[in-house]
Amino acid sequence: MSYQFSELSALYKSTLLENVIPFWETNSLDWSHGGYFTCLDREGKVYDTDKFIWLQNRQLWTFSMLYNRLDKKESWLKIAHHGAKFLAEKGRDSEGNWYFSLNQAGEPLVQPYNIFSDCFAAMAFSQYALASGETSAQEIALQAYKNVLRRQKNPKGKYNKTFPGTRNLKSLAVPMILANLSLEMDWLLHSEQLEEILDNTVQEIMTDFIDPELGLMYENVTPDGSFMDCFEGRLINPGHGIEAMWFVMDIARRRQDTKLINQAVDIMLNILNFGWDTKYGGIYYFLDLKGHPPQQLEWDQKLWWVHLESLVALAMGYGLTQRAECWQWYQKVHDYTWQHFPDSDNGEWFGYLNRRGEVLLNLKGGKWKGCFHVPRGLYLCWQQFSDSATNK
Amino acid sequence: MSYQFSELSALYKSTLLENVIPFWETNSLDWSHGGYFTCLDREGKVYDTDKFIWLQNRQLWTFSMLYNRLDKKESWLKIAHHGAKFLAEKGRDSEGNWYFSLNQAGEPLVQPYNIFSDCFAAMAFSQYALASGETSAQEIALQAYKNVLRRQKNPKGKYNKTFPGTRNLKSLAVPMILANLSLEMDWLLHSEQLEEILDNTVQEIMTDFIDPELGLMYENVTPDGSFMDCFEGRLINPGHGIEAMWFVMDIARRRQDTKLINQAVDIMLNILNFGWDTKYGGIYYFLDLKGHPPQQLEWDQKLWWVHLESLVALAMGYGLTQRAECWQWYQKVHDYTWQHFPDSDNGEWFGYLNRRGEVLLNLKGGKWKGCFHVPRGLYLCWQQFSDSATNK
Repeated sequence: MSYQFSELSALYKSTLLENVIPFWETNSLDWSHGGYFTCLDREGKVYDTDKFIWLQNRQLWTFSMLYNRLDKKESWLKIAHHGAKFLAEKGRDSEGNWYFSLNQAGEPLVQPYNIFSDCFAAMAFSQYALASGETSAQEIALQAYKNVLRRQKNPKGKYNKTFPGTRNLKSLAVPMILANLSLEMDWLLHSEQLEEILDNTVQEIMTDFIDPELGLMYENVTPDGSFMDCFEGRLINPGHGIEAMWFVMDIARRRQDTKLINQAVDIMLNILNFGWDTKYGGIYYFLDLKGHPPQQLEWDQKLWWVHLESLVALAMGYGLTQRAECWQWYQKVHDYTWQHFPDSDNGEWFGYLNRRGEVLLNLKGGKWKGCFHVPRGLYLCWQQFSDSATNK
Repeated sequence: MSYQFSELSALYKSTLLENVIPFWETNSLDWSHGGYFTCLDREGKVYDTDKFIWLQNRQLWTFSMLYNRLDKKESWLKIAHHGAKFLAEKGRDSEGNWYFSLNQAGEPLVQPYNIFSDCFAAMAFSQYALASGETSAQEIALQAYKNVLRRQKNPKGKYNKTFPGTRNLKSLAVPMILANLSLEMDWLLHSEQLEEILDNTVQEIMTDFIDPELGLMYENVTPDGSFMDCFEGRLINPGHGIEAMWFVMDIARRRQDTKLINQAVDIMLNILNFGWDTKYGGIYYFLDLKGHPPQQLEWDQKLWWVHLESLVALAMGYGLTQRAECWQWYQKVHDYTWQHFPDSDNGEWFGYLNRRGEVLLNLKGGKWKGCFHVPRGLYLCWQQFSDSATNK
């Protein structure tokens, strides 16, 4: 199937504004206790009321971002405010670290055991501060950002179960999130600080985490960027690597660094070639570099975010380079994604499919899926194709 | 298909002695560094050399148990000694807590972050002490047992991520393992202490963890044994509940408590009715009590240990009660299990199948599957059917 940019732009726009955002506007607001419900079944009914901080902050980010970048709709700002108020009051411990989860009333359930809650809080409150103009939101964003910087070398703190010294590994997630987060917060950071962080993270991602032979992204490497032949070292997470590549393209575009853009595109294409399921279609969730059985029992499943991040990366990569491989891959991933994930009956997208592409969990949201990857991916693809249609 | 006890007895015996045990004897011994390899691919080749303490201890248990109960084969004692030596030297921290994993050389990788490493160490060294007569093995077993008792109220210690007070839950795994472990160690414990622990654990399992309406086993309940409507509270782990029921039958048989035996059989049958996949056959890995989407992405997979524990529970339940439902269910689970798990080409059993019963991971062992559930299940079913054939 071949696509017109203008048709694609219209498809992404209408799905975002007429299908996905209304699903969350209608179903996710907890009017009694504040914050958002994310455990929504296929029809949007709440099946669990726990509040996971990643997803609370991500929904706050989404509505703030739409307000800032798309349309100053009062209803979007109100939804953002609804989450920001709950999170500012309930989301942090006495030292300002962000919990992992709360119950419906906002009482803490799971301790701040890693830095990703803080990452998403910084992203969310930075967007919300822009939207609302609230100084307190800026302060919350900067506090969370400082937590991330302070804890980046030991993200799990006292909850780290690794015995020190035997096998030190560092994780792609840390520089990757730092790159994206710092770009998000550019308006709040000193430009020198920002450029230094971007330099370091891009350097780390594009040297330490790349397999020199296959050109794939590792998830975990030794501190000096070497491969370690163990389960964690052999792990390939295609969606994560591809997402990292569009973060890098985003930074490279800002710097007009064509070489870096092409390098990121090369790696993205390598990952797609490696991670594509040639039998049933779709991108695997996890693979072992050497083809051994991975530890993750869900390795062969097809996840919504993996496919959305790939569409973003491919649309961006094509927009920036016009390389034919990007367009061929875009169409292949587009066909699979749009055929399998959207729920034509009830709106929004399924999150988890089995290897064959059949619905594995009959939900629209849960502990890890909320109002984030679908709307962000749709927004970014829409903008990309809208630009491409204009520049054609 | 209908079965003769004598045929079943012969099937379990020959599979254990001619197929499964030789697979581990041939492939799992690390002659250079000591201990066992458990990451074995379909053919038995080592694909990873890390040593997971649960599995190291479980293999030590298996070979010691076979030596103690079946046949005083010097080669089995030698294999047990090979693991015991490695574990005694490398398995514990300076306070005597058992690590979770080591690298090939035996250097610690993952800290002692819960009590299950200690549980399996106590089981293993108790059997090995019986087999070898080594006093030091007895001491190791008793030290590990004391660790379990000391840490049972807070099994994860400082690694516990739960915020205290908001939602306290206790886990079925703790009383369940304590019941089985204490029976295993009866020869090392004072009989009063043993009987008190058995009383308490059986009481706790059979009252606190049972759903009063559906007669199913919960995995997690409040400290006073109430249901909690959250992901952890709604979780049903059929294999775990069924395994707990044969532990209870084992204790009840010892006490000639017919009422308790029948109660355990009732619950086992309820779990099987709830947990059986009526479309593709086999027993699900995880379910939500209310039918909501579970958190576990692997929920619909068919795991070897779930099916082996069910065969043990059904054979035992039928042997003890002669109830027709036990026999009907035994045959149903037998057919599924023997058709799907054994690898006729290379010996031993696959561990992980997808919902359709297709092989999901092309392995015989890994981080969680070692030389334990298959040989233990085969041994117990063999003994049960051998008894039944004799008593017929």
